[in-house]
Amino acid sequence: MNKLNKITIIGVGLIGGSFAKGLKQAGLVKEIMGFGQNTTNLQKAIELDVVDSFTTDIAEAVQDSDLVFLAVPLGAMKTVLENMKPYLSKNTIITDGGSAKSSVILSAQEVFGELPEHFVPGHPIAGKEKSGVTAADEQLYVDHRVILTPTAATSQASLEIVQGLWSALGANVEIMNPQQHDEIFAATSHLPHLLAFSLVDMLNEHEELGDVFQYTAGGFRDFTRIASSDAVMWRDIAVYNSEAIVKWLKNYGLALEELTKLVEEKDSDALYTLFKDAKQARDKHIVN
Amino acid sequence: MNKLNKITIIGVGLIGGSFAKGLKQAGLVKEIMGFGQNTTNLQKAIELDVVDSFTTDIAEAVQDSDLVFLAVPLGAMKTVLENMKPYLSKNTIITDGGSAKSSVILSAQEVFGELPEHFVPGHPIAGKEKSGVTAADEQLYVDHRVILTPTAATSQASLEIVQGLWSALGANVEIMNPQQHDEIFAATSHLPHLLAFSLVDMLNEHEELGDVFQYTAGGFRDFTRIASSDAVMWRDIAVYNSEAIVKWLKNYGLALEELTKLVEEKDSDALYTLFKDAKQARDKHIVN
Repeated sequence: MNKLNKITIIGVGLIGGSFAKGLKQAGLVKEIMGFGQNTTNLQKAIELDVVDSFTTDIAEAVQDSDLVFLAVPLGAMKTVLENMKPYLSKNTIITDGGSAKSSVILSAQEVFGELPEHFVPGHPIAGKEKSGVTAADEQLYVDHRVILTPTAATSQASLEIVQGLWSALGANVEIMNPQQHDEIFAATSHLPHLLAFSLVDMLNEHEELGDVFQYTAGGFRDFTRIASSDAVMWRDIAVYNSEAIVKWLKNYGLALEELTKLVEEKDSDALYTLFKDAKQARDKHIVN
Repeated sequence: MNKLNKITIIGVGLIGGSFAKGLKQAGLVKEIMGFGQNTTNLQKAIELDVVDSFTTDIAEAVQDSDLVFLAVPLGAMKTVLENMKPYLSKNTIITDGGSAKSSVILSAQEVFGELPEHFVPGHPIAGKEKSGVTAADEQLYVDHRVILTPTAATSQASLEIVQGLWSALGANVEIMNPQQHDEIFAATSHLPHLLAFSLVDMLNEHEELGDVFQYTAGGFRDFTRIASSDAVMWRDIAVYNSEAIVKWLKNYGLALEELTKLVEEKDSDALYTLFKDAKQARDKHIVN
């Protein structure tokens, strides 16, 4: 692909920083500019060779940019789009890394009045225990899936450029429609996160049990690891993918009611079948 | 403590095998005899230096034994107690490794007509991904908690002997009443296992989503790891600790209903508080 002149990273944390660092090392962009509100963080990004330059001025950030990558919490997407709108060039590609897609697409439609031709919504399926620019890693996306959810208005040319950048970072790009994306990740990612938060919270509040956390073992540690995730990010996901998440919370609620009935009735055979099927499905699909 | 002459391990798998192997290496017992139905497995236990001898005859197994350790699934406890009863010496200590305690105590009461003086119910909080005698490890219990739940009839002398053996294996022994034990482990271990089985099962059955497991990432892998646990063991736990588990399944069901409402109403503040509290509790109590 042709070398791009300027890419702008809005939000230079783990996701935005790793994208930038990887592209810099691949030598595919002449200038990578970071935008944010925290100059200490942005200065750190320069020191860590994550970006070439930075600004806290949105006009400077997006002017003459070939591509703007939004790596901010879902709740900040609309404001950022509004703020950058007056300064965007006609051909600037906009893409993002939000964990839910329909809400970002709706925000873009509201801000621009129609869906922009050069808007390529995306979601890299990668993360780390640590966050922030100091955790930025040019290898973060290698062999990871990146889902792109083009709208009816997305041009093929813009889609291909975004696809090319992710591929250059070693990611496996997959195209999906936004609703399907939101549904699948509500079930496989958002639901388990909410279940884990909820369990820790319940145990923390049931004082009759005393300090039960001291009795937890490795299984509990693994099960609840995702409850140590960032509360702001997950608040935003819960709010901005509310519809799909509620659907799966309700499906799960029904499954739990059924399970509770089986345990109450001590239905050995049905419990065995349920556990065996789950174990087989997991062992088949998921390594370790 | 005085050296014991003979210890019998009923069920030479990971739990029973690790107990035996550790005691053999500590040199605290003259003879450790394994009992089971699978001679290939028992032969393997000899080869791996887990036991000194083995038998498939329950009479031979328990005769003249100073201590019998029951390391079988909860569903097999009562049958084993019944089978061994005619051959037990008056002073033989009986202890076990079952994950629920009230049911084992009830079985002992039913089999012996009253609670035996030398019965010391126990639960080592240790496990591994792998099971079976080949996974037996003399270090398994080092720095792990072992809960003993003596009954009103349990003699102090028997309790101290069992306590001494676990301590010799490096475990931290804690005394608790059986109901409290069952309640705490229903909440911290049995509930999360059932939640994980249930999630995998639900996703596996919702064919409308297609093969969703391909989209899962590290968080899902951690969250569902316990759904790869042994189905027979967990069927038994669900059945034999039914009452406490149902209580916590219902508490959790209520917490989920509340959470579903918050997501439906997009109540940012309440969701943030819930996630933040959970994250803080986990980060405070659980390392990694």
